[in-house]
Amino acid sequence: MVNYPNGKSNYKKPLISSANRGMDFEDAINQSNEYYRVNNIALIYKKPTPIKLIKMDYDKMKITEGYFQQPSTTDYNGVYKGKYIDFEAKETTSLTSFPFSNIHAHQIEHLEKVLFHGGIAFLIVSFRRKEEVYVLDASIVVDLYKNGDRKSIPYSVFKEKGHLVKEGYALRLDYLSIIDKYFI
Amino acid sequence: MVNYPNGKSNYKKPLISSANRGMDFEDAINQSNEYYRVNNIALIYKKPTPIKLIKMDYDKMKITEGYFQQPSTTDYNGVYKGKYIDFEAKETTSLTSFPFSNIHAHQIEHLEKVLFHGGIAFLIVSFRRKEEVYVLDASIVVDLYKNGDRKSIPYSVFKEKGHLVKEGYALRLDYLSIIDKYFI
Repeated sequence: MVNYPNGKSNYKKPLISSANRGMDFEDAINQSNEYYRVNNIALIYKKPTPIKLIKMDYDKMKITEGYFQQPSTTDYNGVYKGKYIDFEAKETTSLTSFPFSNIHAHQIEHLEKVLFHGGIAFLIVSFRRKEEVYVLDASIVVDLYKNGDRKSIPYSVFKEKGHLVKEGYALRLDYLSIIDKYFI
Repeated sequence: MVNYPNGKSNYKKPLISSANRGMDFEDAINQSNEYYRVNNIALIYKKPTPIKLIKMDYDKMKITEGYFQQPSTTDYNGVYKGKYIDFEAKETTSLTSFPFSNIHAHQIEHLEKVLFHGGIAFLIVSFRRKEEVYVLDASIVVDLYKNGDRKSIPYSVFKEKGHLVKEGYALRLDYLSIIDKYFI
């Protein structure tokens, strides 16, 4: 699923509840990143969604036909304490597992490459119906994806090997405290 | 100036020679990044240009009105030997200096923040009429931008404090060899 840019434009949200739910989680991540930036804690941005440009009105510099494309990498990256940080944020309504169908093969490959190059890579997953958000090291994701016939990551893996992210008010999802504690 | 996505779509290049020249340099950087990726040397990508979405045909998932936006950060970032790398690529036809009007204030601020967070930040500038490409540490760029009334970075600064990038065939612009030698 492609995530569409939100806010500020005349963008109309599609009437698909799952997309809206995805937006809420994305908003929480984006606002946390803004908190980190404003407070000089880290510099982490969401990459813009790439578009396939078909037609352009050059007089008005207006795109008149374009399509959102599947990003070839993950949604978020940046720098924290000199380290390269890279992650994908996903949401699921499942109570028992995170389906691999929610994440694209090239995104998992990208996370694996980040690890290879010495960066910090992880998945941040919102189990919406449990109201829990977990950080899971990309090495566990890659391992489960490659070895065995798993179609999903069981919730128990998040519980046992992942790290629950505290939700707050000013800082909605303090995922960097987990990076500090377990990844650096 | 906004850089437009190129290649692969039905994108028509505008008939502005400076834009086309900019594309050549951008292509050289993009191809070098591909070389680095394919050869597992580094993972560096160009960020997609953000668009302001005005109208969308949701039945066809088609953007019918949109505008390219000024990116709030730099064009390139990624990971090399565990380090966060961030840079902006610019071209000038001037023989004597790189005008600060070619780069946006928020991009310089972004590079400064990258340095604050311990990342590697630089400007890569193509002096087209000299057929020379230089890497210049962002700290020098920030310093010249903030201190004094400079409207540009003299060519002599690139010559003395920057690093000339070797141009090649398979690897068009090996800027990481400079990072290796002087930045890490």
